[in-house]
Amino acid sequence: MAEFNVGSVLVTGSNRGIGLGLVKQFLELPNPPEWIFATTREPDGSQSKLALKHPNLVVLQLDVTDPNSIKAAVQRVEEHVQGHGLNLLINNAGILRVTTMENENVETMETIYLTNTVGPLLVSQEFLLLLKKAAQQSTQTGLSCSKAAIVNMSSIAGSIEVVPVWEFEQIPSYRCSKAALNMITRCQSLEYKDYGILCTSIHPGWVKTRIGTEKVEVITHLQSLG
Amino acid sequence: MAEFNVGSVLVTGSNRGIGLGLVKQFLELPNPPEWIFATTREPDGSQSKLALKHPNLVVLQLDVTDPNSIKAAVQRVEEHVQGHGLNLLINNAGILRVTTMENENVETMETIYLTNTVGPLLVSQEFLLLLKKAAQQSTQTGLSCSKAAIVNMSSIAGSIEVVPVWEFEQIPSYRCSKAALNMITRCQSLEYKDYGILCTSIHPGWVKTRIGTEKVEVITHLQSLG
Ligand SMILES: NC(=O)c1ccc[n+]([C@@H]2O[C@H](COP(=O)([O-])OP(=O)(O)OC[C@H]3O[C@@H](n4cnc5c(N)ncnc54)[C@H](OP(=O)(O)O)[C@@H]3O)[C@@H](O)[C@H]2O)c1
Ligand SMILES: NC(=O)c1ccc[n+]([C@@H]2O[C@H](COP(=O)([O-])OP(=O)(O)OC[C@H]3O[C@@H](n4cnc5c(N)ncnc54)[C@H](OP(=O)(O)O)[C@@H]3O)[C@@H](O)[C@H]2O)c1
Repeated sequence: MAEFNVGSVLVTGSNRGIGLGLVKQFLELPNPPEWIFATTREPDGSQSKLALKHPNLVVLQLDVTDPNSIKAAVQRVEEHVQGHGLNLLINNAGILRVTTMENENVETMETIYLTNTVGPLLVSQEFLLLLKKAAQQSTQTGLSCSKAAIVNMSSIAGSIEVVPVWEFEQIPSYRCSKAALNMITRCQSLEYKDYGILCTSIHPGWVKTRIGTEKVEVITHLQSLG
Repeated sequence: MAEFNVGSVLVTGSNRGIGLGLVKQFLELPNPPEWIFATTREPDGSQSKLALKHPNLVVLQLDVTDPNSIKAAVQRVEEHVQGHGLNLLINNAGILRVTTMENENVETMETIYLTNTVGPLLVSQEFLLLLKKAAQQSTQTGLSCSKAAIVNMSSIAGSIEVVPVWEFEQIPSYRCSKAALNMITRCQSLEYKDYGILCTSIHPGWVKTRIGTEKVEVITHLQSLG
């Protein structure tokens, strides 16, 4: 296993849930990143308190459905990393609405897709230059999170083969958005491999958040990716 | 193989391309359907000429992104089938825009998804009652196109595993829409199986149309489904 040594990481949707859990775990690592960019749709102060204790934590506004807010966040990141790139982009922000095959409609299909599928595409497009820079500046061979990576927070609910917990919840709009997000990941992996950027989708497991086990195990998985 | 004997069929986007090819092949079958509903976004007369020669061909206006036009088409179909259901719904309408990972944007992602993924979902929801009726009235056991079926025109481009012709065209918006359409098909198959409705996605092969071999082989595939 390559050493897990991430210089800078950005996590979208990190004011609560898995995103916030990830930021806290990054802060607690024996070798924490030099920069942790915790983005939130609407800054509400909860992260800012954490930032007062941790000078390597920067809270940024970012709505994944708003291209201008993404561009503004890229600029803020550039100001901090000063010529260095961004090593790890975690597209974590996501939404779910409880729908069925009967009541699913255009508005829900569209809203969920724009956040869960189009959002990660746009955010990755805008941060590509910084990710490329990180890859170029790295002395590591191969692909890893410590070098340059895009991690898309998908879900087992996006598996067309498994279609888990159908009897429990149907949520076609959410399932479609995650299946399509897996396609985005596949396209990114084909297109960005030559730049030295690792692209992967992960399923975090069932986590007790507003969307969904008790413990955020995602970081262990990222560590296994180097 | 069960006998291929479809009482009524509706094909969306059948003014040209694969849709028109399918309608013509249905008309030429030794046992053509009692009703062939050829739907078109904007009636332009070309199908109407064909309808003059074939009293079993009904041309209907239907835009898959417009719920009202779908509801109106359901009503017109009901008027024709008079208490009988609809046996076969072919969600053929689809669009493609040539995009890359670099120039893909919100507008294209949204437009393609609304037509290629949300469209088939909505059309199927609205025609569900008629499909259920056809299944109930059928004396056939098992699932088949002749009894009651939803066929979604997908594409090998929607395969996350294969990702064909990447070097030729990237088209992430189209690939995502077809991956998500395959998820819709899977959800439909789980939900509608107990009603006796067959739900499947098919890849027509490469066909020389505005979107994409020379011959429409889809009907042979439908025949193999009974
Ligand atoms: N929990 C599970 O069991 C589970 C399982 C599989 C996959 N996942 C995935 O894991 C990711 C995180 O989910 P979670 O369980 O932590 O859910 P959560 O507690 O509901 O958190 C979702 C986060 O996404 C943010 N968000 C939503 N829309 C956004 C937008 N347009 N722009 C920016 N941020 C936005 C939310 O911000 P606001 O506070 O502003 O709403 C919040 O920070 C999601 O992608 C989810 O699909 C979760
Ligand atoms: N050709 C291939 O090699 C190939 C391969 C794989 C999959 N497919 C799939 O096969 C299906 C048919 O494609 P094709 O090759 O026949 O393409 P095509 O010649 O471009 O025909 C597309 C049809 O869809 C209709 N359409 C588009 N948007 C619509 C909407 N909002 N509402 C209703 N109808 C709409 C078009 O109507 P207008 O004339 O009004 O635009 C046209 O009739 C598509 O789903 C496509 O993705 C094709």
